[in-house]
Amino acid sequence: MKSMDMVTFGETMVLFTPARMLPLEYEHQYYKQMAGAESNVAIGVSRLGHSAGWFSKLGDDPFGGFIFKSLKGEGVDNSRCTFTEEAPTGLYFKEKRNASDVRIYYYRKHSAASLLNLEDLDEDYIKKARILHLTGITPALSKDCREAVFTAIEIAKQHSVKIVFDPNIRLKLWKEGEAKKVLCDIAEKSDVILPGLNEGTFLTGEDKPEKVADKLGKNGKTIIIKLGKEGAFYQNSEESGFVPGFSVAEVVDPVGAGDGFAAGVISGLLRNEPLSMIVKRANVVGALVVGVNGDSEGLPTNEEVDHFLSRSSTDEDVIR
Amino acid sequence: MKSMDMVTFGETMVLFTPARMLPLEYEHQYYKQMAGAESNVAIGVSRLGHSAGWFSKLGDDPFGGFIFKSLKGEGVDNSRCTFTEEAPTGLYFKEKRNASDVRIYYYRKHSAASLLNLEDLDEDYIKKARILHLTGITPALSKDCREAVFTAIEIAKQHSVKIVFDPNIRLKLWKEGEAKKVLCDIAEKSDVILPGLNEGTFLTGEDKPEKVADKLGKNGKTIIIKLGKEGAFYQNSEESGFVPGFSVAEVVDPVGAGDGFAAGVISGLLRNEPLSMIVKRANVVGALVVGVNGDSEGLPTNEEVDHFLSRSSTDEDVIR
Amino acid sequence: MKSMDMVTFGETMVLFTPARMLPLEYEHQYYKQMAGAESNVAIGVSRLGHSAGWFSKLGDDPFGGFIFKSLKGEGVDNSRCTFTEEAPTGLYFKEKRNASDVRIYYYRKHSAASLLNLEDLDEDYIKKARILHLTGITPALSKDCREAVFTAIEIAKQHSVKIVFDPNIRLKLWKEGEAKKVLCDIAEKSDVILPGLNEGTFLTGEDKPEKVADKLGKNGKTIIIKLGKEGAFYQNSEESGFVPGFSVAEVVDPVGAGDGFAAGVISGLLRNEPLSMIVKRANVVGALVVGVNGDSEGLPTNEEVDHFLSRSSTDEDVIR
Amino acid sequence: MKSMDMVTFGETMVLFTPARMLPLEYEHQYYKQMAGAESNVAIGVSRLGHSAGWFSKLGDDPFGGFIFKSLKGEGVDNSRCTFTEEAPTGLYFKEKRNASDVRIYYYRKHSAASLLNLEDLDEDYIKKARILHLTGITPALSKDCREAVFTAIEIAKQHSVKIVFDPNIRLKLWKEGEAKKVLCDIAEKSDVILPGLNEGTFLTGEDKPEKVADKLGKNGKTIIIKLGKEGAFYQNSEESGFVPGFSVAEVVDPVGAGDGFAAGVISGLLRNEPLSMIVKRANVVGALVVGVNGDSEGLPTNEEVDHFLSRSSTDEDVIR
Amino acid sequence: MKSMDMVTFGETMVLFTPARMLPLEYEHQYYKQMAGAESNVAIGVSRLGHSAGWFSKLGDDPFGGFIFKSLKGEGVDNSRCTFTEEAPTGLYFKEKRNASDVRIYYYRKHSAASLLNLEDLDEDYIKKARILHLTGITPALSKDCREAVFTAIEIAKQHSVKIVFDPNIRLKLWKEGEAKKVLCDIAEKSDVILPGLNEGTFLTGEDKPEKVADKLGKNGKTIIIKLGKEGAFYQNSEESGFVPGFSVAEVVDPVGAGDGFAAGVISGLLRNEPLSMIVKRANVVGALVVGVNGDSEGLPTNEEVDHFLSRSSTDEDVIR
Amino acid sequence: MKSMDMVTFGETMVLFTPARMLPLEYEHQYYKQMAGAESNVAIGVSRLGHSAGWFSKLGDDPFGGFIFKSLKGEGVDNSRCTFTEEAPTGLYFKEKRNASDVRIYYYRKHSAASLLNLEDLDEDYIKKARILHLTGITPALSKDCREAVFTAIEIAKQHSVKIVFDPNIRLKLWKEGEAKKVLCDIAEKSDVILPGLNEGTFLTGEDKPEKVADKLGKNGKTIIIKLGKEGAFYQNSEESGFVPGFSVAEVVDPVGAGDGFAAGVISGLLRNEPLSMIVKRANVVGALVVGVNGDSEGLPTNEEVDHFLSRSSTDEDVIR
Repeated sequence: MKSMDMVTFGETMVLFTPARMLPLEYEHQYYKQMAGAESNVAIGVSRLGHSAGWFSKLGDDPFGGFIFKSLKGEGVDNSRCTFTEEAPTGLYFKEKRNASDVRIYYYRKHSAASLLNLEDLDEDYIKKARILHLTGITPALSKDCREAVFTAIEIAKQHSVKIVFDPNIRLKLWKEGEAKKVLCDIAEKSDVILPGLNEGTFLTGEDKPEKVADKLGKNGKTIIIKLGKEGAFYQNSEESGFVPGFSVAEVVDPVGAGDGFAAGVISGLLRNEPLSMIVKRANVVGALVVGVNGDSEGLPTNEEVDHFLSRSSTDEDVIR
Repeated sequence: MKSMDMVTFGETMVLFTPARMLPLEYEHQYYKQMAGAESNVAIGVSRLGHSAGWFSKLGDDPFGGFIFKSLKGEGVDNSRCTFTEEAPTGLYFKEKRNASDVRIYYYRKHSAASLLNLEDLDEDYIKKARILHLTGITPALSKDCREAVFTAIEIAKQHSVKIVFDPNIRLKLWKEGEAKKVLCDIAEKSDVILPGLNEGTFLTGEDKPEKVADKLGKNGKTIIIKLGKEGAFYQNSEESGFVPGFSVAEVVDPVGAGDGFAAGVISGLLRNEPLSMIVKRANVVGALVVGVNGDSEGLPTNEEVDHFLSRSSTDEDVIR
Repeated sequence: MKSMDMVTFGETMVLFTPARMLPLEYEHQYYKQMAGAESNVAIGVSRLGHSAGWFSKLGDDPFGGFIFKSLKGEGVDNSRCTFTEEAPTGLYFKEKRNASDVRIYYYRKHSAASLLNLEDLDEDYIKKARILHLTGITPALSKDCREAVFTAIEIAKQHSVKIVFDPNIRLKLWKEGEAKKVLCDIAEKSDVILPGLNEGTFLTGEDKPEKVADKLGKNGKTIIIKLGKEGAFYQNSEESGFVPGFSVAEVVDPVGAGDGFAAGVISGLLRNEPLSMIVKRANVVGALVVGVNGDSEGLPTNEEVDHFLSRSSTDEDVIR
Repeated sequence: MKSMDMVTFGETMVLFTPARMLPLEYEHQYYKQMAGAESNVAIGVSRLGHSAGWFSKLGDDPFGGFIFKSLKGEGVDNSRCTFTEEAPTGLYFKEKRNASDVRIYYYRKHSAASLLNLEDLDEDYIKKARILHLTGITPALSKDCREAVFTAIEIAKQHSVKIVFDPNIRLKLWKEGEAKKVLCDIAEKSDVILPGLNEGTFLTGEDKPEKVADKLGKNGKTIIIKLGKEGAFYQNSEESGFVPGFSVAEVVDPVGAGDGFAAGVISGLLRNEPLSMIVKRANVVGALVVGVNGDSEGLPTNEEVDHFLSRSSTDEDVIR
Repeated sequence: MKSMDMVTFGETMVLFTPARMLPLEYEHQYYKQMAGAESNVAIGVSRLGHSAGWFSKLGDDPFGGFIFKSLKGEGVDNSRCTFTEEAPTGLYFKEKRNASDVRIYYYRKHSAASLLNLEDLDEDYIKKARILHLTGITPALSKDCREAVFTAIEIAKQHSVKIVFDPNIRLKLWKEGEAKKVLCDIAEKSDVILPGLNEGTFLTGEDKPEKVADKLGKNGKTIIIKLGKEGAFYQNSEESGFVPGFSVAEVVDPVGAGDGFAAGVISGLLRNEPLSMIVKRANVVGALVVGVNGDSEGLPTNEEVDHFLSRSSTDEDVIR
Repeated sequence: MKSMDMVTFGETMVLFTPARMLPLEYEHQYYKQMAGAESNVAIGVSRLGHSAGWFSKLGDDPFGGFIFKSLKGEGVDNSRCTFTEEAPTGLYFKEKRNASDVRIYYYRKHSAASLLNLEDLDEDYIKKARILHLTGITPALSKDCREAVFTAIEIAKQHSVKIVFDPNIRLKLWKEGEAKKVLCDIAEKSDVILPGLNEGTFLTGEDKPEKVADKLGKNGKTIIIKLGKEGAFYQNSEESGFVPGFSVAEVVDPVGAGDGFAAGVISGLLRNEPLSMIVKRANVVGALVVGVNGDSEGLPTNEEVDHFLSRSSTDEDVIR
């Protein structure tokens, strides 16, 4: 068995988007896509030149097949993914009324992924990885899923697999109190934490990046707080600082920026780059994602990241 | 409150069909439609000139709104329909690989409609109706739904509301043994039963229409057994016979024929027509439904039924 | 017969929009929608919790059926709508070359609605309403239509039904001189007038809101002049003032804002709110309409209006 | 001025067809096409290698532009076509419920083409043509159109231009009695008449091809009666006979076959071929049209006609 | 390096199909798909449970990426595929005028795949395979491609890799004389040959299956001649016979049947089944492919083949 | 033969654009359009009321037919266009990731147009024209094409046909050094040169409009340098100056602006207008093109140019 640079797990769903920017009630035509925070990260890490493994439990139905094949096509190792006939592949609908009014309708409550449990964990697969990536979505899916997350954490800690945790708070999926308790618990056990500022506030009660980082970053943890267009703040036991964001010509689709950022961080960790450089490149990955429609379609290769960093601001013309 | 000629209840879902005849795994574009056996019957009865009431529990989401408005638009009284934030509106996907390989993928297991229960029944509404229409789908959705069905039956029987029962067996939704027991129980309590021959065999073990009718048709019940293109067999305490089917120029979409047939029977019962005439017109309604795409789009008015019965076979030309 | 809070009448058409922003000459694919100022107002008033009746004369064709069912689905009472085989349902095509170059191509000149006449008025229906809503479009459609408008006005005045008049000047439909004469005549007989500033200038020759209001607002009339993003100016015999507009995050589709404003005014009148409050809420309704594609799709409920008024400016995130 | 081999005139409209085979009431997406019997014939004659002129009056709108450019693109001389701002370009919608239930909804009653009149006739253009083609549609459009048709006939007769008349009876456009009178009058003045058998019966009361031909074919006229799949019967003062039809692998779209047949006849007349050969090739043209979707898309070149006549029945494979 | 059960190589292209059955000249909307005989076989062999490797040279462009990811997603090993910036990925357009008039327009003449050459062959990869699959398309693409084919044959023969050859004659790509010479040469060097009857006739001049097999099948070769619906004739040094075809409910898309057949044969060879059984199962694979749209979408798993062989003819109903 | 006001020649291709703004790798649906700099100019000159001839070599395939008919429909004389079976009509795909990241994928390298050569030039046709328009694209297509360009220049110069040259530099098609040499050679022989500022810099090494014009504009040439939104700089032996650009409400599609500008210049030259007026109107034509999607759809008539120049800035409302 080939060992992976990074392993992650969590629900990937089928996303249906209306053909036009109309309330779903009035729209008749829809497009099928693939969406999932953990698989976005896996695709991103893979494009940046590392081996990335992802798994979930999919329904034994055409949508499960679609997700499985799409991720395999993207070069992600999905050999540990399991299928079930007990429940269908989760899906959701996105209603975009206008740029600032986007609504999400889930069909994931009793989905196949919510049945993911302890038995779906391949201990050997996790312990041979260099990094375990976790999000705050998976523990919100079901009790079984939560148990799987904490067991994976134990495996990782026993074998010195570095844990990178992206809170990804989804209050549509569970209660605020429960979410806070569980996510703080995971954060406590993680090595690298990647909250947005709002998420950091949710977890710590603080609203300044430095304060959030102080509270979360005990015991030698690395904390990187995403600040949107402003960039990011980072802090570990040795250094701390701000890295400014990159302006992009046009934000076509903001979704997936955080996943791209996480992929950039993980890639940098795997290359043992200095923290400030890691955060800078992670910023670029996030910036490139938002310039392309779709959550994962814009995830760049290393060449594209380098090109972005070196470009002059004037060579934007179409070359024919 | 206006009293209804017929009342029915049961799950209406949103149906997504692929734009092309491709396996869903490979299809990217989908169309939204409305589908539900009970609401098809309500639309059919309404087009035939009667007042028809339908209710279900819908999700408090855009798909629930779409169904609610569509049925209201079709002239169905949906004033007793309820909404919930606890669960989403059910939906399903239809995969048509070729004319004889059609597959259904449900997202209805924990849908809003499965939460329909005793408290959603308006006793007054049911008892003032002349006919209560029931299908074998509703009791398969959940324990709550089943309880609601049997309570509705009790209300109907107490107030001499005639019960018309269409078995509509859906073995994807429950176990065979349970289905048989419950459906026989409902049949026992019904006044008019409308099985297909296969369904009659499932319920009675007999495979000849006459035998099926004998077993089901005790205590003065009216039994009408649908025989597809061959027509139908009918039997009540006074008369029995076969009515041949109507050939249609082209079967565009066979789904919904049974619901059209049921609407035709109910309309005839409301008009107190003789049984053989009722079955003949019901055959026409079913035949007209299959000549049009969609489950309910082809449901005819009385004028269209009369026109079909009186047409000569040669006047099929386009009139420009 | 249930009496209506508001009654309106006028042509609702089928609108075909090109799939892409291309000159119609070069576009091959079109989408069907419903469009009509009066029916927009009826939908809006209905969503705000009142009973609203609308009628027109529709063609006895699939497009007439589409309009009839769509409005019924939206909860509008269309029981007085009539159908004719003499003429088809009106339709039009919208060519959007760019945001400021939109062209309209009508097929409404001899449409079914233009045949609407005195005999289509149900005196009883109008006289029991609390408000009669009229636009300046209907009298432009034909002589018969104009006669119907003036007869409806007479009925209203005899039975103290309040007349709300929205000029909606359409110079593609009639000559400027004729339009001015007829519309001033209607304004003279109305209780509440809702012109845009341009329309006020057309009717009075004045170009300041206060002057327009002075000229139009004799005999105790209420005048509300729409000033677009700037808000509105109002004046009746007791009070007058400006209400500032609400900025919306994004104007997706400006069409229908005026109809939403009218619905908001009518709702406020029905609730006997103070004039300044009426205008404020009408502004919100108009603002919410332009944030959604389509003329009527964005019309809000009272809850949505309240939510808009109470929202903080920062809680715009997608909740997942 | 270049003189034309054939001149024809009559309304070409924009046709909207639903994206799916659904009743129009329920269909949301439409495709734009071009349709017109006379322009079909002009395209057909042009593809067969002759010069063909067509004219009508189009609306000064995008749909008029679309038709004008499309016909020019097909090589038809449309230099005599006129435009008006008085009325829009005619259009119609086709509802295909199933193969034998097709319904047409016209928006042509007061269309631009109905304003075509005497003044639009260029006497010089008509008198220099070798053949004038007329259909029974044009005189049904308006009194002005009818007058134009009879004036064109006079011009043709004065200058020995051969008149080819295809009845194309459209009873949606005028009354049966009026139609019969006018069409018989035109037939009387024509040199070559191309009725379907039904049309021949309508004009003569006879139902056998030979009898129809006898009644219509006085004074040296050439009569060719289209018998669908059975082929055609022809008769002039010198010869008569049946030509069997050609079976085609698949009838994809039957519309336009008659126009193709007319184009084939006109081409043969221009080449002075023997009548039986003319009819045979006209049959081929019609057969080739129905194997392709659209009214005119399948109209063949001479090479394609020759290829069809010479093909062996086995070389149907795709050549890759 | 994992060794493959089967290795194949050859051009996979992007196929564009019109949205409607219209001549391409008149169609405005197209769908993108993937198409290639060798990759179809690789997908088929992979679905039947074996490891299958495929390679070609793709353009370094989005279409190359699309093909690469799609094949990886289908479980095909494409690790030996190369990319070039010298030429674009090949593509073609399919024009379906009707069921028997399908036309192909290639953009493959100087495509990336035509640059595939000796240097793209990984000797180690080929020699470790159990079967090398070749088609008659690859040698037709260019001189370089032809050289690669013959070199691959040499490698295979040196290492006792069994060669399965499917002639797939494409006379649009080369001259008849050249094709015959080269294909006979390849056949001579192959172990298993899978011609259609026409292809067998092209190669041998014989037109009876037995005669074709005699001429091709010297030196212990296995010959399997595809006879379409009639089934297939097989012959090796030990046995020979006919296997009847399987009727399928509906032929939705005949393309890809031959590739499915080849996949079935290869799977049987890998399992060392008796020849008659191999041909029977290959027939089933081909039959299942034609019941689904697309060249490869209908390729079955072993379970689906078994299910097809064991099904009764009556259980075709939709299970809901 | 009618002599043309302007003659041009060069490749017109079929352009496929994705239905959504997605990377091509992930997009499944495409639209077909027509695109070509020289044909854009021909359409533009024709709309401005002159006769314009265009020719190229097209493939004898449906895409060649589509281009041929489309240009004929636009009123361009394409009588000298030739067809070949040796190569297909060129095509390209446009990938629009966001407003500033547009990528082009060509299938034109061995296209039909690249086979255009000396023998396709009709000397008589060129020498009778008043203006010969050339772009820098045609000489980049092939050696044959380049030879044709220089031969056409010779013909023009011998017969005093004015040569208007638009550099249109396409570095995807040839090497920089070769391009510079050839284009400078053509510029040297031209009468009017229309570079963008970048192109002027490429040809002369200067980066100020005045300097570029000095270097290019020897021997009485007219130089007009396009400066985008800033307008244009012009210079001939008698006068020079800047003309400011026109702001347009919205730039919908910037492609085609340069071709529109060239058409405007040519129209002005044909009318013998003063140079400053020529440049002013050319600016308007370019401005109107970018307000409409598509390269040529927005090309204006003289009336539209006049209207644009005379409009007040406030009359932008939709007239209904």
